[in-house]
Amino acid sequence: MSFRLNQLASHLIDQSIKNADHLKIEVHTLESGGRVLDFGVQATGGIEAGIRLSEICMSGLGKISLTHGTIQESHFPFVSVQTDHPVEACLLSQYAGWEIACEGFFAMGSGPMRTIAQTEPLFESFSYSESPERIVGVLEGDRIPDQSVFDYISEKTETPSSHIDLVIAPTASIAGNLQIISRSVETAIHKLHELNYDINLIQSATGIAPLAPVADNSLNGIGRTNDAILYGGTVHLIVSGDDEAIRSKGPQVPANSSPVYGKPFLEIFEEANKDFYKIDPHLFSPAVVSFQNISTGRVHTYGEISESVLMTSFGLSRN
Amino acid sequence: MSFRLNQLASHLIDQSIKNADHLKIEVHTLESGGRVLDFGVQATGGIEAGIRLSEICMSGLGKISLTHGTIQESHFPFVSVQTDHPVEACLLSQYAGWEIACEGFFAMGSGPMRTIAQTEPLFESFSYSESPERIVGVLEGDRIPDQSVFDYISEKTETPSSHIDLVIAPTASIAGNLQIISRSVETAIHKLHELNYDINLIQSATGIAPLAPVADNSLNGIGRTNDAILYGGTVHLIVSGDDEAIRSKGPQVPANSSPVYGKPFLEIFEEANKDFYKIDPHLFSPAVVSFQNISTGRVHTYGEISESVLMTSFGLSRN
Amino acid sequence: MSFRLNQLASHLIDQSIKNADHLKIEVHTLESGGRVLDFGVQATGGIEAGIRLSEICMSGLGKISLTHGTIQESHFPFVSVQTDHPVEACLLSQYAGWEIACEGFFAMGSGPMRTIAQTEPLFESFSYSESPERIVGVLEGDRIPDQSVFDYISEKTETPSSHIDLVIAPTASIAGNLQIISRSVETAIHKLHELNYDINLIQSATGIAPLAPVADNSLNGIGRTNDAILYGGTVHLIVSGDDEAIRSKGPQVPANSSPVYGKPFLEIFEEANKDFYKIDPHLFSPAVVSFQNISTGRVHTYGEISESVLMTSFGLSRN
Repeated sequence: MSFRLNQLASHLIDQSIKNADHLKIEVHTLESGGRVLDFGVQATGGIEAGIRLSEICMSGLGKISLTHGTIQESHFPFVSVQTDHPVEACLLSQYAGWEIACEGFFAMGSGPMRTIAQTEPLFESFSYSESPERIVGVLEGDRIPDQSVFDYISEKTETPSSHIDLVIAPTASIAGNLQIISRSVETAIHKLHELNYDINLIQSATGIAPLAPVADNSLNGIGRTNDAILYGGTVHLIVSGDDEAIRSKGPQVPANSSPVYGKPFLEIFEEANKDFYKIDPHLFSPAVVSFQNISTGRVHTYGEISESVLMTSFGLSRN
Repeated sequence: MSFRLNQLASHLIDQSIKNADHLKIEVHTLESGGRVLDFGVQATGGIEAGIRLSEICMSGLGKISLTHGTIQESHFPFVSVQTDHPVEACLLSQYAGWEIACEGFFAMGSGPMRTIAQTEPLFESFSYSESPERIVGVLEGDRIPDQSVFDYISEKTETPSSHIDLVIAPTASIAGNLQIISRSVETAIHKLHELNYDINLIQSATGIAPLAPVADNSLNGIGRTNDAILYGGTVHLIVSGDDEAIRSKGPQVPANSSPVYGKPFLEIFEEANKDFYKIDPHLFSPAVVSFQNISTGRVHTYGEISESVLMTSFGLSRN
Repeated sequence: MSFRLNQLASHLIDQSIKNADHLKIEVHTLESGGRVLDFGVQATGGIEAGIRLSEICMSGLGKISLTHGTIQESHFPFVSVQTDHPVEACLLSQYAGWEIACEGFFAMGSGPMRTIAQTEPLFESFSYSESPERIVGVLEGDRIPDQSVFDYISEKTETPSSHIDLVIAPTASIAGNLQIISRSVETAIHKLHELNYDINLIQSATGIAPLAPVADNSLNGIGRTNDAILYGGTVHLIVSGDDEAIRSKGPQVPANSSPVYGKPFLEIFEEANKDFYKIDPHLFSPAVVSFQNISTGRVHTYGEISESVLMTSFGLSRN
């Protein structure tokens, strides 16, 4: 089965533009014809915008919804994700693996445009290719991208600006915040790929993580959204294959496989002198990861939720 | 951004009429051309009808779903509401603020027709106006409205009967009961407006409350649906602005800010000699209200759930 | 109100065919024109396929969703079902009451084709009839049905093969497993019908049960999916009528009304020498069944969840 990821995402872009008022987003068309969908820079955005944005990131191959759980016995909104196409939806589309850096602009790029640029090493593991008419990218950043950003992406993807749609939302915006927390399954799959587990064995997946309160700035937003997944995320992977691969890789998957697990992400970040690359990469994963092996019927669950870290990180102590 | 609330609601009316069998609703057209959509008087209605009715009340600017929670550790259905347009959806549309009283007919009126009649003081705080072709109203009552009700509304809205759609469901009906319980966010926002908190600061909101069992009559229905929100409702408001406004008004928002909080609503009602206007107005609010301030990143939570009152009110003790 | 169940299901079949890649299903057309939709035999299927399959079983008169609950305080996916047409959706459509047995092929048949064949005694209690152009059946089995199966069904339904759509998924497949667990409400309603409770009194219903991990073979799949409902299912029935009928039948409804309740289904099955017909039929029902009587406002709840049986049956002990 082969999807046309950019085409699927383009369809969602069209729907979002049609519902711009409802979603509280803004659409800007540059002189070059390149379009920017602002989901939270100057626009306010909202919860529904966050859901759509998450679905655009996954090229429509994942279902996102707002649901409810509890943190220390109080009701709290959670973001739920479900996909039957984990590799295409999460790794080829959703993973924010492309650094868009040009002339004072920096943002992590995700969405299916990455499959055209193929600048990331992970694409070497997959033989995915498509020739879309239009391409779609999602940027996590604080500034509306200008023509220089389109030029950069245009060059890497060999696509004219007029055929590029870029969606942008800051980490510390309602939609951007939700979009990051919808990545519970993606973080598990990316980690498994890094561990050389054959992620083509993952047939379907569901995940849930608490919708962290929107932070006042990007740094705090990075802290809270990471904590939502690292300390509050639970992922169920439906896999095939033997149990041995799960038993050997499984314990390394959840966030608590990292020795730095246990304190809010921002504290860990500061201890690493604010250098992401000095943080143990094993940390970036959901709190709990469960493998349901349909070949053997066995279930393997690793990791643990830490509600106390969530309470601290989210600032949830009662008045 | 400006919506046409009646037009949005009219669109939902059309969909409901098309799905009348599925929703178990009945449509009556009067000689004048006025239409009545019966969601629970003679018609049975159902859960899905209740969801649609709630969305009509909110002019389609809120998303309603049946979800699940627990009451004393047992699974129980809950009604969830989500909106990115709290003022338009909840206050301008959903709030049941228009008393429709004529010739032996009485019902509380909600829905976007209120924005045309503007008989309520709250409209003085908003400069909202629209000129719809058709208008939509929702009545909480036990009798199918006849032409005199249409005449009354026609006069106040300067709209011919043939362009008025009225939806009706009793408090003690499956759809009517659900519709009231979908008002968790609305009660919080109305209370905040009464407290002179600037509700334009509320960007988005989510709420949840247990779907009280349908009562045998209106009075008991009023009791249970109030208790569902007062003792079982949790609302999360995503707001902007400073924290001071939240700190000063917040503690007065949840139901437990009222000294009469703590017993089933019907007991309070009886102690007030069955006179609504003698009941402390501070009572009418969700059990828990949480403010997530995106300007400061701070979270402020007030109030408490009382599962024991819910058990009593809903009659949930085990056989 | 009278539905055309096969027509409603045919509409869902068309949608599924259109989304075959997304659902990971395969469509085979026999020379006779009969169509097979493979949701999990050779096809992989997925969670979304399971949801669609469940909705096809209910002829589109039930709403299925993946939701979240907890088992021993850990997040776990649950399957939720909601219907305002319990008799049509659950008994006339979803109940797997037709044994399709021909030339080495055996599968339990469900879906609206049963209303045309009417081979089951339960149809004597209902005067339901329709004359559809196309008919839809769902098979729980491990083999793609061949022409002999179409011939068998064609004869019993007096419908040419070219107008028959058969959907198939094994118990031990992602979609088939979910489909069975979506039967929480159906098992309650079937049991009540067997107990001579007038199921026309049931107006609406909701149910929830944990999404058991897919088993490695059919037998284990039968064990786990039964346990999901018997020990993990909760059903809320909105009924009318007097309380006496509820009080007299209610205690016999939940699974714990059976003396064999308390151990995983496969153990009970083995103690019955693997003969289904020797198992106490009172066992086949949700763990908890609650009646909300809208005529009296009373709520009657029977039964109990057993998380420890679920832990054992699902193999959820932690690594």
